[in-house]
Amino acid sequence: MNQSQTTPPDSRAEDQSQPPEEVVQELVQDMQRLLESGQRPEMLNRFGQLHPVDQGEVLDGLPRELRQSLLADLDPWIVAEILEYLEPEESAVMVGGREPADLAKVLDLTGPDVAADLLRQIPEEKQQETLQAMADAAEVTDLLQYRDDTAGGLMTPEYPVVTESTTTPNALDQLRLLGPDAENINSVLVVDDQHRLVGSLSVTRLALARSSSLVGDIMHREFTSVTAETDQEECARMMQRYNLSFLPVVDGEGRFTGVILAEDLVDVVAEEATEDMFRIASVGGERIAGPLSNSLRSRLPWLYINLATAFLAAVMVSLFESTISRVVALAVFLPVVASQGGIGGTQTVTLVVRSMALGELPRRLGLRLLVRELALGTIHGVALGVVVGVVAYLWKGNFTLGLILGLAILGNMLVAGMFGAGVPLLLRQLRMDPAVSSAVFVTTFTDVIGFVLFLGLAAIFVQHLV
Amino acid sequence: MNQSQTTPPDSRAEDQSQPPEEVVQELVQDMQRLLESGQRPEMLNRFGQLHPVDQGEVLDGLPRELRQSLLADLDPWIVAEILEYLEPEESAVMVGGREPADLAKVLDLTGPDVAADLLRQIPEEKQQETLQAMADAAEVTDLLQYRDDTAGGLMTPEYPVVTESTTTPNALDQLRLLGPDAENINSVLVVDDQHRLVGSLSVTRLALARSSSLVGDIMHREFTSVTAETDQEECARMMQRYNLSFLPVVDGEGRFTGVILAEDLVDVVAEEATEDMFRIASVGGERIAGPLSNSLRSRLPWLYINLATAFLAAVMVSLFESTISRVVALAVFLPVVASQGGIGGTQTVTLVVRSMALGELPRRLGLRLLVRELALGTIHGVALGVVVGVVAYLWKGNFTLGLILGLAILGNMLVAGMFGAGVPLLLRQLRMDPAVSSAVFVTTFTDVIGFVLFLGLAAIFVQHLV
Repeated sequence: MNQSQTTPPDSRAEDQSQPPEEVVQELVQDMQRLLESGQRPEMLNRFGQLHPVDQGEVLDGLPRELRQSLLADLDPWIVAEILEYLEPEESAVMVGGREPADLAKVLDLTGPDVAADLLRQIPEEKQQETLQAMADAAEVTDLLQYRDDTAGGLMTPEYPVVTESTTTPNALDQLRLLGPDAENINSVLVVDDQHRLVGSLSVTRLALARSSSLVGDIMHREFTSVTAETDQEECARMMQRYNLSFLPVVDGEGRFTGVILAEDLVDVVAEEATEDMFRIASVGGERIAGPLSNSLRSRLPWLYINLATAFLAAVMVSLFESTISRVVALAVFLPVVASQGGIGGTQTVTLVVRSMALGELPRRLGLRLLVRELALGTIHGVALGVVVGVVAYLWKGNFTLGLILGLAILGNMLVAGMFGAGVPLLLRQLRMDPAVSSAVFVTTFTDVIGFVLFLGLAAIFVQHLV
Repeated sequence: MNQSQTTPPDSRAEDQSQPPEEVVQELVQDMQRLLESGQRPEMLNRFGQLHPVDQGEVLDGLPRELRQSLLADLDPWIVAEILEYLEPEESAVMVGGREPADLAKVLDLTGPDVAADLLRQIPEEKQQETLQAMADAAEVTDLLQYRDDTAGGLMTPEYPVVTESTTTPNALDQLRLLGPDAENINSVLVVDDQHRLVGSLSVTRLALARSSSLVGDIMHREFTSVTAETDQEECARMMQRYNLSFLPVVDGEGRFTGVILAEDLVDVVAEEATEDMFRIASVGGERIAGPLSNSLRSRLPWLYINLATAFLAAVMVSLFESTISRVVALAVFLPVVASQGGIGGTQTVTLVVRSMALGELPRRLGLRLLVRELALGTIHGVALGVVVGVVAYLWKGNFTLGLILGLAILGNMLVAGMFGAGVPLLLRQLRMDPAVSSAVFVTTFTDVIGFVLFLGLAAIFVQHLV
């Protein structure tokens, strides 16, 4: 890659092969070295040449004390610029500790959406004090009423809007007044005199229009919009579906309230995928770089839940202790039954949950999917059951053992298909998150039913097994 | 949501609550009903009012014969418009069967990137015939040399470029000639007389410039670019990192070759996340709506691989058959050992693999991560081991049994942390995909080592267990 003037010259050559996180890692070490050897001005100079994204990550990588001392030296507008690129959680760590008056000075310089996202992270009381200390808190207060996983929480109200009765030269003048803020847009939005959204107009078209024409005459009347309450996942799906570079947000009366940009959406898509992935794997919200206590809180509860379900399986096995004591070889195959059911269930759950998230699974196709997964489970069960049965027969020299193990695997794969598809479908029907039908729950079903089948058949045919 | 003029009026009201895939499902049924009752013109009229995205999905949902008969009635430019929004695989299903001359007519009307993506899906010989039949195949042929998971495979060469020595009125005239194609952009790219990329210029700034100024005088000289060979995942990370709405692609000499748009990137981010998710769950490439044979090919090999590893665990257990025959209660706890190790390993693998994909795990932090996961494994192991040990002791009334089960769980969680983090780290070091260190492999380690610990300790202290 070629990260031009924004990166210091000496790191440009390395960029060709190094991922950005490694470049940042090196920068952090350089900064520490410069600071420790007393070259503070040199360090500040070096820091000033970085892109705000990299400045943010370098700050994040520095030890807490160095970070605070460096931050204290930075102008509020530099800090504001950095906040534009950080995750709200990271921003809160970085400046959340400041006094309300001090924090307000920085937030006055960020976009209202960035300010609102940060204020959501800090305690209610301090939030209010900061808002009161801000010079321009109106837009931020408006945004704070929306949940951060909705269109309202994602949008920015700062987007050029013109009325349809404006002449095109006047519309261009309005853009001129916005200065650099208007440079990243490809269209202005058009509203009527009630501020209701009625269309959009590409800047190119506006620039090329005859000076006598009105905005309303040359605007594009087709547009897709959402309301501020729309879930961010639905916004993401719509923008992906219709390949939109921005999505206008309106209130209940169709009045313009903000815009979601495609750039902001990339983060949402990545974030939603991460969430689903972690839920399926029974991990809560967790960052690999966060404190150990966060990781414990995110994983340990699920490990205890899994323990409870594992004991359920253990109880099932214990019901057949007398059979196992007569045919110890049965114990040898318990892990095979558990393992195959587990992997089969995980495959199905992951596929179904991800397809739902990508909007590929309409509600009415639920039953068809269930039938499909049962059919697949049957095929898998036969294909695996025969192999398992033959191997067990050859190993232990007992045909009945091979037969019941094969049947148990068949039953297991059927259960994996049925519950792997059925549990997420049921959760969606109940308007719950299908991703919580994680490995933990589906493998409970496959374990318990697999063991009962295997050991139950063994108990019935025990005279053929000894 | 408010999907305006592009959706037929009668479905607009339903849109408020229905996700788009359900709307499409209903449309498919309406179409079929109209066709079956002989109202073909009515059906075509209805179809024509849909957004191309919806047209594509309706076609996808129709039975094969109806689809082909409907497609035969559509103008090539309508088909071309639909292809702009479809996944290449879906496009291939829809028009891949056409004669080369016929296919060429459609592809001449699509963007070169769409044409290239589709041609990658069809056999080499037919690809060549189609290219020869196309009126304008040069750009498409250029694009076909790039792999479809690189910047070259993702970019579109159709992006407005002006030379730095152009006057601003001339630059505006060039935009005018591009017509609607130039309406979705916010900046033009600027090149020197060697066609090397030297900057960008926002359309707003261009529109507002004095007529005497040159493009080179008012352009923005800072830009980030990639080469055509850059991996799409890296492009995605850069665009996310620097919040870019487009990313220019240059050749080895810095000459402009194309542009990646943020809208196209949303798909890449979703796709890469899906791939990792499926790999961790041991599923190959699969669509829930695809043919059953695809699903079998995607899942069955992994089920067989898992079977082999499950037998490895079974062999471990069989080494201790004599111990189990003396203490049958040991068999009861095998599922607990396997289950806890499995979930612990899956948690760690998922976290580590996803953090790598999101660029949150620099290479040099590998060792620190390993230590961190081992520490977590120890805490998890103690927290769970104590509970498991006490429950087993209370249940079976044998203190030694509780103790060795607790120790086995402790060891298990250590192994889960070590291999859950170690295997993906090792794979990345070997420049392999860390996501293939799926549940299958890590649970093999936790199963085998957990069983050996549990049953090995039981064999040593067997006189305290009976």
